[in-house]
Amino acid sequence: MLKLVLQRASDRPLYHQLADQLRELIRCGALPVGARLPTVRQMAQEYGLTRLTVHSAYMELQSEGLIEGSVGRGTFVADRLLIPTGLSAGTAIRVPPPPVWLSQGVMEDMMRMHGDKDLIAFAAVAPAPETYPTAEFNKSLRASLDKADQMGYGSTQGEEALREQVAHLLLDRGVVASPANIMITAGAQQGIDLVLRALATPDDIVLVEECTYVGMIEMAVQRSQRLVSIPSDAEGIRLDLLEAACQRYQPHLLYLVPTFHNPTGYSLSPARRQGLLDLAKRYDFLILEDDIYGFLAYDGPAPLALKADDHEQRVIYMLSFSKVLMPGLRLCALVLPPDSVYMHKILALKRCSDLVSSPFLQHALAHYLQRNRLQAHIQRVRPLYKERRDTMLTALDDYLPECSWTEPAGGMSVWVTLPAKVQERSFYLAALEHGVGVAPGSAFFALPPSQPHMRLSFSMQPPAKIRAGISILGRLLEN
Amino acid sequence: MLKLVLQRASDRPLYHQLADQLRELIRCGALPVGARLPTVRQMAQEYGLTRLTVHSAYMELQSEGLIEGSVGRGTFVADRLLIPTGLSAGTAIRVPPPPVWLSQGVMEDMMRMHGDKDLIAFAAVAPAPETYPTAEFNKSLRASLDKADQMGYGSTQGEEALREQVAHLLLDRGVVASPANIMITAGAQQGIDLVLRALATPDDIVLVEECTYVGMIEMAVQRSQRLVSIPSDAEGIRLDLLEAACQRYQPHLLYLVPTFHNPTGYSLSPARRQGLLDLAKRYDFLILEDDIYGFLAYDGPAPLALKADDHEQRVIYMLSFSKVLMPGLRLCALVLPPDSVYMHKILALKRCSDLVSSPFLQHALAHYLQRNRLQAHIQRVRPLYKERRDTMLTALDDYLPECSWTEPAGGMSVWVTLPAKVQERSFYLAALEHGVGVAPGSAFFALPPSQPHMRLSFSMQPPAKIRAGISILGRLLEN
Repeated sequence: MLKLVLQRASDRPLYHQLADQLRELIRCGALPVGARLPTVRQMAQEYGLTRLTVHSAYMELQSEGLIEGSVGRGTFVADRLLIPTGLSAGTAIRVPPPPVWLSQGVMEDMMRMHGDKDLIAFAAVAPAPETYPTAEFNKSLRASLDKADQMGYGSTQGEEALREQVAHLLLDRGVVASPANIMITAGAQQGIDLVLRALATPDDIVLVEECTYVGMIEMAVQRSQRLVSIPSDAEGIRLDLLEAACQRYQPHLLYLVPTFHNPTGYSLSPARRQGLLDLAKRYDFLILEDDIYGFLAYDGPAPLALKADDHEQRVIYMLSFSKVLMPGLRLCALVLPPDSVYMHKILALKRCSDLVSSPFLQHALAHYLQRNRLQAHIQRVRPLYKERRDTMLTALDDYLPECSWTEPAGGMSVWVTLPAKVQERSFYLAALEHGVGVAPGSAFFALPPSQPHMRLSFSMQPPAKIRAGISILGRLLEN
Repeated sequence: MLKLVLQRASDRPLYHQLADQLRELIRCGALPVGARLPTVRQMAQEYGLTRLTVHSAYMELQSEGLIEGSVGRGTFVADRLLIPTGLSAGTAIRVPPPPVWLSQGVMEDMMRMHGDKDLIAFAAVAPAPETYPTAEFNKSLRASLDKADQMGYGSTQGEEALREQVAHLLLDRGVVASPANIMITAGAQQGIDLVLRALATPDDIVLVEECTYVGMIEMAVQRSQRLVSIPSDAEGIRLDLLEAACQRYQPHLLYLVPTFHNPTGYSLSPARRQGLLDLAKRYDFLILEDDIYGFLAYDGPAPLALKADDHEQRVIYMLSFSKVLMPGLRLCALVLPPDSVYMHKILALKRCSDLVSSPFLQHALAHYLQRNRLQAHIQRVRPLYKERRDTMLTALDDYLPECSWTEPAGGMSVWVTLPAKVQERSFYLAALEHGVGVAPGSAFFALPPSQPHMRLSFSMQPPAKIRAGISILGRLLEN
């Protein structure tokens, strides 16, 4: 029998709970294509449910195209799963009922909102401009100014001086890397783009967490990448479902944010980190570890990077300076396994994408890192972001009693589950109209989520505005 | 009968000449797949050739897989043309006899050579570092330094201030564009990458000039893009062969460098410009005009951009600041037709590639342009590059009597045709060993060329070194 846990005390109707859990099992392959589901009668009996409840759950899944019934034969997992495939570039992922699902445009909206000064901006995850270490960094920019060759083509792999400094910095995340295995990219976005293009064709399965970085989703839409989403809980990605997906899809690559995850803020637990590395070895896949929030810990030290324990060289590690310093630098470091066959390929793709990243900015960052200014900067911003996080959590308690949310120990955002009755897109638009930018939850899912959510970034607003913004959201939810 | 022009006075054997011309006709579709070639006897009679000459030419084409014979039936254009297709990403284009053909690695070599100070560097096309307007540009960088939001995410389309300045600048090239139709990319390389990804799937036919930008070839290899090469002569791309290719392939896109072409230095003649725009309309394709050398004219004014006469809105125009100013800026402007349906798509792809280009560097460039510094800079560098070009042409006259070469009126390189006996790759390696970097001609062809070539960039070396380098090449050719 299936392992299902139904909570009778929950606000969420039982038939929704049942559908949710079956949906997860199907998506991850624990219930493979063609598997026969228990009959309504069996299911009702097993879990002490009414037949109507089970029937309603089955109808929901059927309307989504996940299962199909056949009179006299039973109910089966359908053979047309929700993986985008064979679409021409630029076509939106076609998924069954996309009621609240937004896909394209949200990232665009977020970028645009980011520039709107009047908005109470909870949508984009970015450092607060007032934290930019302008005076200090200007010294480093000036130090780079008079060297004429800083404006030449430079190295596709990245300037040696910067790669050396990154190697030093990574020791703080438990990562031991040689400058030869480090490569500089134009932000994490380019890092993901290059790794994806090097390691996976659009037809290859790439695994992601069920809710994941919106830029990853948009990229998958643009290149018609087949994604399979693995659900997570408060300890991070669920290894049982990951293993089921490995057995079913033989994936090449898993992309995840194990530390202060975007959007949820959760970190992968120590036990699961080891388990994940074991699975990567057993099922022969690579992991792209996006560690762009790893330095932003507010309640004691952050877990070390997954890469720190990567003895089998299965982790490609990525550290961007966009969140921890300034996004406008457009600089990020990829760490590839030593003697990686991928280095050559990723370098070729970088040459085809933009040849090199500005050597001038790279040297400025190297100079800044060399003087240990980043650590000082991090010490300064941590208490500021911690205060903003705490303010947001308190305000949520005060103003959004019907919602639940995560309590992240680091990063820049809180993940809010809205009441089931809320129409996510209408709420998002209403909030915008009332001067509050939020990121609609659907944007973070490759498949339509079962609940409405929103991501609230606390990094960009001072405490008073955080309270004001959350109270507006609270009033909107009351209506 | 076929229109062939054989030059009996030429050094090139008649059978090679015959094979060359048939090859061009086949590649462009003027001789379509399955077409029957005249018999050896007919051909010999028609052109007053010996049967051995015709037979040798046919054998050469057969060994390349271009034609196939069948006893008793005749000789036909083979049904496996040399277009890379269906290869997995990263696989080299498979082409029949690749004896001198280098493909991958040359661009990498060039980037690496670019950093070698001891080399007499004729390989990479780049501005001379001593021309960098460091003092002036530093003022603009400083002007950007203290504005905190220069280090934020900024706009994916590009900073408004820069797009406005670009709109002004483009008037000098005859291009009237609104800032709303301009988009900033990380160099021309990213411009090409985005346009290709937006407008063509790898299976779509993209037309290029027979010899073209090496970064275009490398990109085609990386994404398994089907390319069809159209031969050019001293007036630029040949419209008769372009039209044949249009009829055969219904292409979506033609990429070309109509002004001071890289590598040949030729410009498309005025008559062909109009003819090309007519063809684009008639056969419904778009043109990506790479105009990165348009400001570098040494013998009177440059032809205006093709875009200047683009009344049908079929030209996507591209101006990079890498050649005319400094490569390390990594900034380029794309001009899309007004209300272009592609703008949205290209913006989405830019977001997926690297989100934005550094707003800080964009504002610095905008400030520099606003003070009309670029025009002053161009006035300064033109005589310097003109002198270097003249020095190179004289040195070629003095030291390379067995070669022929182009005499470009602008740009940064001279295209040298080596004697047929020269093994291009060996020569390239020997030159490197003797301290002279050249770009091997094959790197600029999507298909193996019929003659050995090299591209010599004159921009990076002072006159004395140019003479020294060319004399070394001359000695190597004597051996």
